[in-house]
Amino acid sequence: DKHLKVFTLNSNPKLAEEIAKHIGVELGKCSVSRFSDGEVQINIEESIRGCDVFIIQSTSFPVNESIMELLIMIDALKRASAKTINLVIPYYGYARQDRKARSREPITSKLVANLLETAGSTRVITLDLHAPQIQGFFDIPIDHLLGVPILSDYFRKKQLDDIVIVSPDHGGVTRARKMADRLKAPIAIIDKRRPRPNVAEVMNIIGNIEGKTAILIDDIIDTAGTITLAANALVEHGAKEVYACCTHPVLSGPAIDRIENSCIKELVVTNSICLAEEKKAGKLVELSVAGLLGEAIIRVYEEQSVSTLFD
Amino acid sequence: DKHLKVFTLNSNPKLAEEIAKHIGVELGKCSVSRFSDGEVQINIEESIRGCDVFIIQSTSFPVNESIMELLIMIDALKRASAKTINLVIPYYGYARQDRKARSREPITSKLVANLLETAGSTRVITLDLHAPQIQGFFDIPIDHLLGVPILSDYFRKKQLDDIVIVSPDHGGVTRARKMADRLKAPIAIIDKRRPRPNVAEVMNIIGNIEGKTAILIDDIIDTAGTITLAANALVEHGAKEVYACCTHPVLSGPAIDRIENSCIKELVVTNSICLAEEKKAGKLVELSVAGLLGEAIIRVYEEQSVSTLFD
Ligand SMILES: Nc1ncnc2c1ncn2[C@@H]1O[C@H](COP(=O)(O)O)[C@@H](O)[C@H]1O
Ligand SMILES: Nc1ncnc2c1ncn2[C@@H]1O[C@H](COP(=O)(O)O)[C@@H](O)[C@H]1O
Repeated sequence: DKHLKVFTLNSNPKLAEEIAKHIGVELGKCSVSRFSDGEVQINIEESIRGCDVFIIQSTSFPVNESIMELLIMIDALKRASAKTINLVIPYYGYARQDRKARSREPITSKLVANLLETAGSTRVITLDLHAPQIQGFFDIPIDHLLGVPILSDYFRKKQLDDIVIVSPDHGGVTRARKMADRLKAPIAIIDKRRPRPNVAEVMNIIGNIEGKTAILIDDIIDTAGTITLAANALVEHGAKEVYACCTHPVLSGPAIDRIENSCIKELVVTNSICLAEEKKAGKLVELSVAGLLGEAIIRVYEEQSVSTLFD
Repeated sequence: DKHLKVFTLNSNPKLAEEIAKHIGVELGKCSVSRFSDGEVQINIEESIRGCDVFIIQSTSFPVNESIMELLIMIDALKRASAKTINLVIPYYGYARQDRKARSREPITSKLVANLLETAGSTRVITLDLHAPQIQGFFDIPIDHLLGVPILSDYFRKKQLDDIVIVSPDHGGVTRARKMADRLKAPIAIIDKRRPRPNVAEVMNIIGNIEGKTAILIDDIIDTAGTITLAANALVEHGAKEVYACCTHPVLSGPAIDRIENSCIKELVVTNSICLAEEKKAGKLVELSVAGLLGEAIIRVYEEQSVSTLFD
């Protein structure tokens, strides 16, 4: 006798609603608020004893609030005798702090993995980790889904002519290759150097982009420095037009202004991170990962393989 | 060859400065800021290899930010080969969530203890835990200091006549007793019921307060509902005047207004929580715990007993 329960916290309630609809369940009753002093107050308003519980929460802005909500919810569910506690983390924050790039740096990405396990989670479902190695930071099962199929489908339907898929840096070439395979297109790479965090500088371009429609793909677009400089470089080097896409629209600080003022025609993103309505105006196109995550939840719950979701 | 390093994070830098001065060291060089997307960025700017490191951080407002800063700092220090990582937590937040008062509640206070250990801390020094049982939530050594001596000394120097020490609820009677012993005064207790969180209601008074100067003592004053209603009840029942004191001035929401508009003459608090300057106007008197915490750090570092600090 199995029981599936899906709860949402505060980072991405709209996506959670969509996922619940896809699965055909109601979201679990639960209030996640703050005491007067800012401490998280959670009330789970239905029994979850013996249930397979899925919590939907991106560790996105405000990231520290989102992480603490998630940890406290896991603690409450564990103490209320949930059978399994499955985290659905569409956007896994702190992923860029995944190694010591300089002396005495933390590896926050690993720390957060440890914290989630300590709190009592039994499985993680996530999407486009900044580095796939982050999977190894967990000692519990993790299903790592990809945004590329969803982004590729959008561009396939657009039927653009003579396209080239462009990675804005060396780290993203594998991702660009995956998209290029799906769209039967060639790839190109931007040679970039970043003098300090959140500041980007573009160098030269490897590959043929002359007269082509370029589609830039990245996992995260944060301050949009990298992507807008890349777009400008592409046009300067003869690209006909430039689209950009990413799975995780962090879009902090000057991001929206930079994109609106750039030569990028459209920025195609997913709803892994919940965006304020005003950010969604202008050039942004939002695609939903609800179907993908909903499908993954059903498969995990029914103990089926999740890997076919990648095709 | 031992080395002592004291670092501060962002919750209470002034207290940390005072503590460092008391000990006779400079604060360790370190920047704790935010990336553009709100993620914590920590740079430890001096070697700490092989050192006994003390981190000063109250888990006070904004509590989730303060906790994440602390966890990430611990992670960075651990990876940078600190010999010991000692947390000096003047105010331990989430302490009121220390038991399941209702079904399916988290026990966040225990969760946070687990998180701090998982991150890599080796010892905790703290002050007036909301319940002394929280010591048992840690599996590492914990030194639990008391605010009562500091608060008592203040009132002793004031040389008030005919005083009575009043506990605003049943849970605080032991604390009131300790203060009464130091001031050679009787105690009284307020019979209170709280209909819901952050709302307080006063019932009757046990003990003789007629014509006396009442000193209300609590560990935490948050929204100040309990303490101001208690003060009013004391005056209504014949107390001559009412002082109030506590170790931890959380003072959220309507607290300051309530205190200023109440019959409380002075509210005496410690700097375990850093207060905005505007909150410190009016009836507030702030005492420093820097000497107490500094002494505790020296004793821990020199591997001496901390317990004599309680006398
Ligand atoms: N939230 C963040 N915003 C900007 N930079 C970050 C953030 N977190 C980590 N970093 C830095 O970004 C670098 C890693 O980014 P990447 O080279 O894209 O993997 C590291 O050197 C980190 O110090
Ligand atoms: N930050 C907070 N503000 C107000 N009430 C809280 C807070 N944290 C926990 N509580 C509630 O306060 C009660 C415990 O307070 P106490 O009886 O004073 O130990 C519990 O029922 C909690 O649900």
